[in-house]
Amino acid sequence: MSAKPPGRTTATLLMRCPDQKGLVYRIAEFLFRSGGNIVHDDQHTDVDAGLFFSRVEWDLAGFAIPRERIAASFAPLASRLGMEWELRFSDERPRIALFVSKLDHCLVDLLHRWSIGELHGEIVAVVSNHEALRTHADARGLPFHVFPITADTKRAQEDRELALLADLGVDLVVLARYMQVVSETFVAGYPNRIINIHHSFLPAFMGANPYARAHERGVKLIGATSHYVTPDLDQGPIIEQDVVRVSHRDAVADLVRKGRDLERVVLARGVRLHLERRVLAYGNKTVVFD
Amino acid sequence: MSAKPPGRTTATLLMRCPDQKGLVYRIAEFLFRSGGNIVHDDQHTDVDAGLFFSRVEWDLAGFAIPRERIAASFAPLASRLGMEWELRFSDERPRIALFVSKLDHCLVDLLHRWSIGELHGEIVAVVSNHEALRTHADARGLPFHVFPITADTKRAQEDRELALLADLGVDLVVLARYMQVVSETFVAGYPNRIINIHHSFLPAFMGANPYARAHERGVKLIGATSHYVTPDLDQGPIIEQDVVRVSHRDAVADLVRKGRDLERVVLARGVRLHLERRVLAYGNKTVVFD
Amino acid sequence: MSAKPPGRTTATLLMRCPDQKGLVYRIAEFLFRSGGNIVHDDQHTDVDAGLFFSRVEWDLAGFAIPRERIAASFAPLASRLGMEWELRFSDERPRIALFVSKLDHCLVDLLHRWSIGELHGEIVAVVSNHEALRTHADARGLPFHVFPITADTKRAQEDRELALLADLGVDLVVLARYMQVVSETFVAGYPNRIINIHHSFLPAFMGANPYARAHERGVKLIGATSHYVTPDLDQGPIIEQDVVRVSHRDAVADLVRKGRDLERVVLARGVRLHLERRVLAYGNKTVVFD
Amino acid sequence: MSAKPPGRTTATLLMRCPDQKGLVYRIAEFLFRSGGNIVHDDQHTDVDAGLFFSRVEWDLAGFAIPRERIAASFAPLASRLGMEWELRFSDERPRIALFVSKLDHCLVDLLHRWSIGELHGEIVAVVSNHEALRTHADARGLPFHVFPITADTKRAQEDRELALLADLGVDLVVLARYMQVVSETFVAGYPNRIINIHHSFLPAFMGANPYARAHERGVKLIGATSHYVTPDLDQGPIIEQDVVRVSHRDAVADLVRKGRDLERVVLARGVRLHLERRVLAYGNKTVVFD
Repeated sequence: MSAKPPGRTTATLLMRCPDQKGLVYRIAEFLFRSGGNIVHDDQHTDVDAGLFFSRVEWDLAGFAIPRERIAASFAPLASRLGMEWELRFSDERPRIALFVSKLDHCLVDLLHRWSIGELHGEIVAVVSNHEALRTHADARGLPFHVFPITADTKRAQEDRELALLADLGVDLVVLARYMQVVSETFVAGYPNRIINIHHSFLPAFMGANPYARAHERGVKLIGATSHYVTPDLDQGPIIEQDVVRVSHRDAVADLVRKGRDLERVVLARGVRLHLERRVLAYGNKTVVFD
Repeated sequence: MSAKPPGRTTATLLMRCPDQKGLVYRIAEFLFRSGGNIVHDDQHTDVDAGLFFSRVEWDLAGFAIPRERIAASFAPLASRLGMEWELRFSDERPRIALFVSKLDHCLVDLLHRWSIGELHGEIVAVVSNHEALRTHADARGLPFHVFPITADTKRAQEDRELALLADLGVDLVVLARYMQVVSETFVAGYPNRIINIHHSFLPAFMGANPYARAHERGVKLIGATSHYVTPDLDQGPIIEQDVVRVSHRDAVADLVRKGRDLERVVLARGVRLHLERRVLAYGNKTVVFD
Repeated sequence: MSAKPPGRTTATLLMRCPDQKGLVYRIAEFLFRSGGNIVHDDQHTDVDAGLFFSRVEWDLAGFAIPRERIAASFAPLASRLGMEWELRFSDERPRIALFVSKLDHCLVDLLHRWSIGELHGEIVAVVSNHEALRTHADARGLPFHVFPITADTKRAQEDRELALLADLGVDLVVLARYMQVVSETFVAGYPNRIINIHHSFLPAFMGANPYARAHERGVKLIGATSHYVTPDLDQGPIIEQDVVRVSHRDAVADLVRKGRDLERVVLARGVRLHLERRVLAYGNKTVVFD
Repeated sequence: MSAKPPGRTTATLLMRCPDQKGLVYRIAEFLFRSGGNIVHDDQHTDVDAGLFFSRVEWDLAGFAIPRERIAASFAPLASRLGMEWELRFSDERPRIALFVSKLDHCLVDLLHRWSIGELHGEIVAVVSNHEALRTHADARGLPFHVFPITADTKRAQEDRELALLADLGVDLVVLARYMQVVSETFVAGYPNRIINIHHSFLPAFMGANPYARAHERGVKLIGATSHYVTPDLDQGPIIEQDVVRVSHRDAVADLVRKGRDLERVVLARGVRLHLERRVLAYGNKTVVFD
C-alpha cells in the first residue's frame, strides 16, 4: 500500500461521479498539466449504479499549483463532471475521539498503534459512559470524558458529547466497543465519519449478544465487522470483516476470547483505511482502495 | 485424523448420554475387557445441556467379541447409562444418493473424490429434477433418475423418490446444489442423514439468492455452509463452514465463481466427516470429532 | 474483477517501463484521443526497482482505431517511454496444453472449469509421461499425447513435445502435477508462459516430497504455490499461494488429501489470472492486477 | 476448550509412553477408582513413532486422593507403563519472564492479556538487552531488568539472567521479539519452557530479516510461528502458525505492519496453550490438545 515515498507530502483526491468517457484522462490531465507525479492511482466503476469512483494520490514536490489553491483549480473540472470529491494532504492528521465503555481491548490496541505511528491521525480524547477505563487515557496523557447515559439523560448527554467533539475539532469518531446505540441526531453530525466494531460477521447476528447467539446456533466460524454507523443499527457500509474458526469445544467465553483478537484487528484495519483516505462509502456499501 | 492403521478394520461407537461420573472408564473398561486396541478416542461434555458425547474407534483385530455380537454385548451398559448410541464398522460402505439440479460443480467434485477413494461410501445413484447433468452420471456408470417437480406434482414425486431411496438402500442423501426445498415428510425419512450445501455463511442470507444479497449488502467475505437438513429451511445443524474474501471489484458473477470453490470444499468436508462417523448432531448443533 | 461489460469485446494493454512523470496521463491520453472507454485501469510502481507497471482494459465498441491498427498506433508512444508492452483482446482464446502424470485432481478440476466457461482460453491437448489419465482427455474429446521419459530419452522427448506445442500453436503450458522437471531448453521456449503448481508454501519445502517433509517438520499449516517456471527449480515468480490448517492428528495421507483441495484452487487461480492478462512478471516476482 | 467448570480446581495429567493396549483404560481406571470426574480427555498415537500421548483433566472436587498425594499414587502405574508424565493443578500459576528488546507490540499485547486474566500464569519480570521498553514494565508495576549484551559479555550476562530466573522461580521464558540468540547453555536450563515468536512461516525464512527476504522473494502470504527454543536456531517444535495475505502493493514496511498483528496473536496462542498444559513436545514436533 505504501507506494508513498516516505517523508514526502502527498495530496489525495477521492472522487465519485456518474460514469462517462474520459474520466481517467481528464483527471490525469489535470495533474499532468501541473507536473503532478502520481504515486497511487486506482478507480472502480459500479456498472449497475452507473457510478465511477477514483482515488489519486500524487507527490506535492514539484507540483505547480500551491496546495492552498489546488481545490479551487480542480473545482471547475469537478463540477463539469458532476463529481463529489474530497481533497486531502498526507501531512494532515485527522483528529480522533475514541468512545468506549468497560471493555479495554480495542482501546488498548488503538492507543498502542497510535503510539508507534501506525495510525495517520491524532487521538485527542477518550469518551465513555463509564469511569472504568480512565487509567488507560491517563497513561497516554489523554483527556477522559465521562458521560453517564440513561434513557432519560441520553438526549442531553449526546448533545454535550457533540459539543465536546465540536470544541475538539474531531474528524473521526471510533466506537471501540462502546456499548450504547448512538442516536440519529448524533449520526447526522458525522456522516460516514463514525466507525463501529460489531462482534459478528454481519449481517449475521445484528444487535445484542452476538457471541451467545453464535454459540446457540452452533456456527463453525465467528466474525467481526467494522462499518460506518448509520441510523439503521448494524446496517451501515461495511469497511472490513474477518473470521476465526471455532468448534463445539468452545464455550461462549472462548468465543469472546477469540473474538477479542478479531475485533481489535478488524477495527484497526477499518480505522487505518479510513485515515489513509482509502474508503469511499455510497449507499450501504464501500469501495476500499487498498 | 487417520490414526486408523491402513487396511485394518475398525469398529466405531458414537455415544450420547446424560453427563455422569465414570463414563470414560465404563466405556474404556468394556473395550479393555475384550482386548480392544483404541485407535481414536474423543469426548465432549456440553455443560449447559448436561450431555456427554463420545466417539471411540478400535481395532477389530484381536477383539474378543465377534463383530456381530458387539452390539448385544454393549447394549446393557448403554441402557444403564441412558445412552443413545450407534455402532459402525470401517468396512461398511454407506450408500449415497446425490441430488442435483443444473449446476454441476459439486456433483463433479463428489464423483471425483469418490473415484479416487476419498469418500468412505458408495454413490449408488444421482437424482435430479432436470435432465441437465445426466452425462456426468453416465460417464461414471451411475443410474440417473429424473423426477421433474412442480407445485402440483411435488408430493407425489417425493413419494417416488423415497420409494427409490428405499429400494436402493440409501443411507445418506446429499443435496449437491439441488434447487428444490424438500418437504417435512421427506426429511422425516432421513433424520440427520440429508446433507445440504448452502451458498452463504449461515445464518446470514438464509433462503434464495444469497450471492446477490451478499453483493447488495456489500460484505467483504462470502461463505458456504454444509448442514443437516431439518424441516426449518437452512436452520439445521451446521457441520462445516468456510469463507473467501471478496471486494468491491467483485460482481455477483465473481461471487458465484469464488463461491463454487467454497461450496465444493465445504460440502465435501461435511460429507467426509459424516461418512467417517465423526459428526454427532443434537438440537440444531453438531459435535464434530475430527 | 469483471467490470468488463458481459458480451463486449475489450482490449488490454499490459505495460512496464522505467518510472517517470506523466505515464498515467500519456496512456490515458492515447485512449481518450480515440474515444476509448476504460473498464479497468490499475498501475503499480516498484520504487526500489524504479519500474512502473500498468494494466489498462477498454471497450473496443466506439474506439476509433481498428483493432488491427492499435498496436502500430501505440508503438511510437511506447518506444518514447522505453516501454515493454503487450496488447491483447478479450475475444482471443489463448491455447493451453495441460501436462500431467498420474494424479488427476488438478486435471479434472481444470477440465471442469474449462467446460463451464470459467477459463478464458482453449485447452487443446493433454500431454503426459504416462498413460494413466488418458480417459479424462478422451471424455472431453481432447487429444492425449504420451511421451515416456527416462534420463536417456528426456532431451529427445522434450524436443518432440516442443514440436507438438509449436504445431498446436500453444500459448500457455500448465504443469498440473506433472512429475518431471522440465529442462532449461524447454523453459526457454515459453518464458513466463509455463505455470506450475508446487505442493508447498514456497520457499518452504522446495523440491521433492513436500508433504512428507512438512509432516516431519511438524508444521501447523500446509500450503500450495502456483508460479511461472524458470530454470531454477521452484524459484520462479509466484502468482498465487494459499494454506490450510493441519494438526498432529494429520498423517502424511491427510496432508496429501487436504493438499489436493489447495493445489486445485491455487493452480486454477494462477491460470485464470494469467489468462485474464492480470499478471506481470519481472525478475522472480509478479504484479497481479486483480 | 473451557469445559473446565469455572471456579473449580482441576488436576491435569500430561502423559507420553510407548503405545500399548489398555492405556486409556488404565488411566481412566486410576481416576475412576478415586471418583475423579473427567472434564477434558484427549489422546493421540504417533503410529510411526509408536508413541501414545494423553492429556486428562479432572475435577478435584470429590476426588478421593488428596492433591499432595496424587503424584505418589499415580507413579507406580506410570512406571509400569514406561510413562513420562507431568501433573499440574489449575490453581497453580506458572511464573513467566518476558524477554524483549526494542519492539513493544508483543510485550504490550501479553501484558494486556495478563491484565484481563487471559493468561493462566503470572508475569514476574521483564528482561531486556535495552532500556527502551522500561516504561511498559513500570506501568504494570513489574521489575524491568536490563542486561546489555555484546559478543564479549554474552556468556557472563546470560549467567546473570539464569541466576535471576532462578531467584524469581521462573517456569516459562517468553521471547517476545527478543533480538538475541540465546545460547545452548541457556536453552538447557529451560527445555521446552522457552517460547519464541519467529516472524516468518517456518521453515521458510529462518534466521534474520524474514520480512525483507519474503518481500524479495515475492511471496503472496507472510506468516509467523511460535515455537519452543532449541539449540538449533528456529528449528524447535512448532506450537502455532498463521499467515496473512500480502500483494505487490505491500512494501517491506507494510509486511512489518501486517506482521505485527500476526506475531502478537501467534505468540499469545502459543503461550496460552502452553500455560493451559495443552502442549506435549517430542523431537521437533508438538501434540497440541486444544
